[in-house]
Amino acid sequence: MTLERIYDVVVIGAGPPGWTASIRLAKTGMSVALVENELVGGECNYWACVPSKALLRPPEALTEASEVEGAKQAVRGLLSAESVLSRRDKFVDNWDDSNMKAMVEKAGVVVVRGQGHLDGPKRVVVSSKNGGIALVANQAVVLSTGTRASIDRKVKGLTEAQPWTNRNATGAKKVPSSLAIMGDGPVACEMAHVWSSLGTKVTILSRNDGILSRYEPFVGERLMNVFKHRGISVRANVNVKEVERPNHKQDHPPLNITLDDGTTITAQELLVAIGRTPNTDKLGLETIGLKPGDWLQVDDTCLVQGVEGDWLYAVGDINHRALLTHIGKYQARACASAIIARAHGTLTSSNSGGSRSCNSYDPWNKWVATSDHAAVPQVIFTDPQIASVGFTEKAARSLKINVRAVDCEIDTVVGAMLHTDGYTGHARIIVDDDRHVIVGATMIGPQVGDSLHSATIAIIGEVPLERLWHAVPSFPTMSEVWLSLLENYGL
Amino acid sequence: MTLERIYDVVVIGAGPPGWTASIRLAKTGMSVALVENELVGGECNYWACVPSKALLRPPEALTEASEVEGAKQAVRGLLSAESVLSRRDKFVDNWDDSNMKAMVEKAGVVVVRGQGHLDGPKRVVVSSKNGGIALVANQAVVLSTGTRASIDRKVKGLTEAQPWTNRNATGAKKVPSSLAIMGDGPVACEMAHVWSSLGTKVTILSRNDGILSRYEPFVGERLMNVFKHRGISVRANVNVKEVERPNHKQDHPPLNITLDDGTTITAQELLVAIGRTPNTDKLGLETIGLKPGDWLQVDDTCLVQGVEGDWLYAVGDINHRALLTHIGKYQARACASAIIARAHGTLTSSNSGGSRSCNSYDPWNKWVATSDHAAVPQVIFTDPQIASVGFTEKAARSLKINVRAVDCEIDTVVGAMLHTDGYTGHARIIVDDDRHVIVGATMIGPQVGDSLHSATIAIIGEVPLERLWHAVPSFPTMSEVWLSLLENYGL
Repeated sequence: MTLERIYDVVVIGAGPPGWTASIRLAKTGMSVALVENELVGGECNYWACVPSKALLRPPEALTEASEVEGAKQAVRGLLSAESVLSRRDKFVDNWDDSNMKAMVEKAGVVVVRGQGHLDGPKRVVVSSKNGGIALVANQAVVLSTGTRASIDRKVKGLTEAQPWTNRNATGAKKVPSSLAIMGDGPVACEMAHVWSSLGTKVTILSRNDGILSRYEPFVGERLMNVFKHRGISVRANVNVKEVERPNHKQDHPPLNITLDDGTTITAQELLVAIGRTPNTDKLGLETIGLKPGDWLQVDDTCLVQGVEGDWLYAVGDINHRALLTHIGKYQARACASAIIARAHGTLTSSNSGGSRSCNSYDPWNKWVATSDHAAVPQVIFTDPQIASVGFTEKAARSLKINVRAVDCEIDTVVGAMLHTDGYTGHARIIVDDDRHVIVGATMIGPQVGDSLHSATIAIIGEVPLERLWHAVPSFPTMSEVWLSLLENYGL
Repeated sequence: MTLERIYDVVVIGAGPPGWTASIRLAKTGMSVALVENELVGGECNYWACVPSKALLRPPEALTEASEVEGAKQAVRGLLSAESVLSRRDKFVDNWDDSNMKAMVEKAGVVVVRGQGHLDGPKRVVVSSKNGGIALVANQAVVLSTGTRASIDRKVKGLTEAQPWTNRNATGAKKVPSSLAIMGDGPVACEMAHVWSSLGTKVTILSRNDGILSRYEPFVGERLMNVFKHRGISVRANVNVKEVERPNHKQDHPPLNITLDDGTTITAQELLVAIGRTPNTDKLGLETIGLKPGDWLQVDDTCLVQGVEGDWLYAVGDINHRALLTHIGKYQARACASAIIARAHGTLTSSNSGGSRSCNSYDPWNKWVATSDHAAVPQVIFTDPQIASVGFTEKAARSLKINVRAVDCEIDTVVGAMLHTDGYTGHARIIVDDDRHVIVGATMIGPQVGDSLHSATIAIIGEVPLERLWHAVPSFPTMSEVWLSLLENYGL
């Protein structure tokens, strides 16, 4: 007989969305079990955002110093690859989750190690080396198992060639001499920049016209130019047909990568960064009538659709709303508030088998993830950084919003000129011309990442442009880009 | 007989407020004369913000690179003082205003060189080496002559000792061996940081308990600690009694500075940064019934109070609302809109000799500088940077606003940890607990300057905290400080 324990809430998956929900629930006095099969902290902390930024920041800081007259005279050496990698090791706590586990437990959350899966409504079974245990949830079960790198099974030999995923790319202990990258999104671009900075010859293999095709067009064009100057080659409109790691006497021989244009390239490693697969295949979804391996559709409180009884939530990547750590944490905050509100009867709407629309709640309540629809921010930590929030012009038009794109060269802003000699950057806001509010913003340029939040606040605050005109940017900061944008809009 | 020319608007003073107003007016088709006795671009461009930031950025960039493992290994030399100074020279165009003049003229503004002063209503006389000329304004005269450093005449020997003002401190061609600074505000702190970085032994002489006493208390305390570590000494609660530059055989002998605590210090230079004096003494104010040398009181459209007929405006420092370039430019934009609106009859209120309150206009209109009252931002470009907007806790309480101060250590934000190893910083928001909006924010930490604008937008947008909760900061940016602040508030 399986040992059984009862909690108010059981959370499966201890990445940022999982631990955020757990801690918030535990702080209200609920008993919470948090199940994790790998490391508490998840993909983000150990194999994605954190190690990536830890690796990207040293070349960025050094480049900035090298681009400021007076400082550059002091830069006489090269980036130390060994120190960059050990900086990364430090930020991922050498892949040891003791600190993260202690933080979670300090908040009163019970961490349960093992593979968790549903075993019917409100019941989670955790299998581990030490046997099984069943966790029964009084109130809710929250799924937050995230995603893993997708491997294109149509590419012959790909799996056998043991390609890199984001995990190897952020965790490598040695600098490869050459690296080919399948993909053209943020992971591909950040990793191209990291390894190229450390001396690797990088080739990006894009199935699209260029890179970062889901963003405003100027972003990919400009980053591609920078990449070209850095010696990163971008092969556009190519598909990988076949991969082979020849079995000769070398310890770790280079790969031969055959493309659909008939050419072959050779690289020591191949990073596959073409998308993500939800970790829902081993979650026991079949025991509650859902299909294993699928993305989970949720409403704005993150209740999983198609399940009776308002008890199953999914936060983070697996609900496929926006695959970003901060959005997962945001959903977790909303989800925790929804669980508490439902427990107290404050939120009474019931989940009638998926018939309710995702937007039937009043927006901007504490228990709904309203920003998922129109205010998702993202920063890509390449150098230059890329920051975007809300809709691109194209996306807004496809939603029939009457928009105008307003542009500005950040180079013309005195604060940018002073930041680094020869600063170049570009900013665009997307203005809803009927409502006179901003619905999107995109910037590319050194250190634009922390300027993004002002756009995010303008969007979620629905602050009219005529009022934004009174938000005075300090001279000489880069934020004066706002002044140029509003002037270019016609204010 | 004096030559006479007629313009729609005559602007005296070509600093940022002056040229901003001129260009905006000229672009609507008005004829505009801009009178300048020194350099087009003004104090800010040549002797304040721009050279200061040009000097401050190299040490900042170098420090940042030195505080990132992997990058720091490449930093093997010292800051090049010579290159830092030549960077400054480049940013001030070697004190040549051809570029700025060309920019202004390109917009259709007529630049008139010489000392401009009022000669009765709507009449400006410009005296120059080439004689005099009278400019008659159809619509309006805008005064924007700014301020100059105040010299404390009670200090014996101060004027005779030829102390530095901000002009010498930002313009010096050589690094002094030692520098004493009278003052404890932004100019004193920025210049202490600049010259200390270049090797000067700096002593700050503060009449107050510490430095930056007008800001949230943690700001001065923290910066003072940093200064201490850098070898900058701060003497608190002291007044300079006497200054003497002994007349012995050295070319430029050091000064003896006697303090009111009986001690004497010696320094090669003495910077006086104790405040500003309005450049209104030679403006002919007496010809229209105002007192020369006074600050000019204005309403929210920047109309000077106490003058009949709605024709005289004052923008920038001289109206004493907030002595900051960006606020001067903001006022200039409002003032230009007001002049246009009054010319078209859109804005009809008349200025009845100062009897109207400053706030009798609808706030947030294009022609009023509403943000002057409650949303003035400022960034001090020391390292760490200091950024503030709106009210301090103390100021809000003195206005009987029911506020709560909410704090957060920026060190706990992952994005900050990743920025520089050992990042330390602190943030505070001031929340109006009745209206549930933010009325002030202050931050200290590396690169916080561009994070300020998000707070400014939150304040002017009057975005409720419950809505701000939906402004998701990107992970891992420093903007996640917002998440901590709102959580610490109780969301």
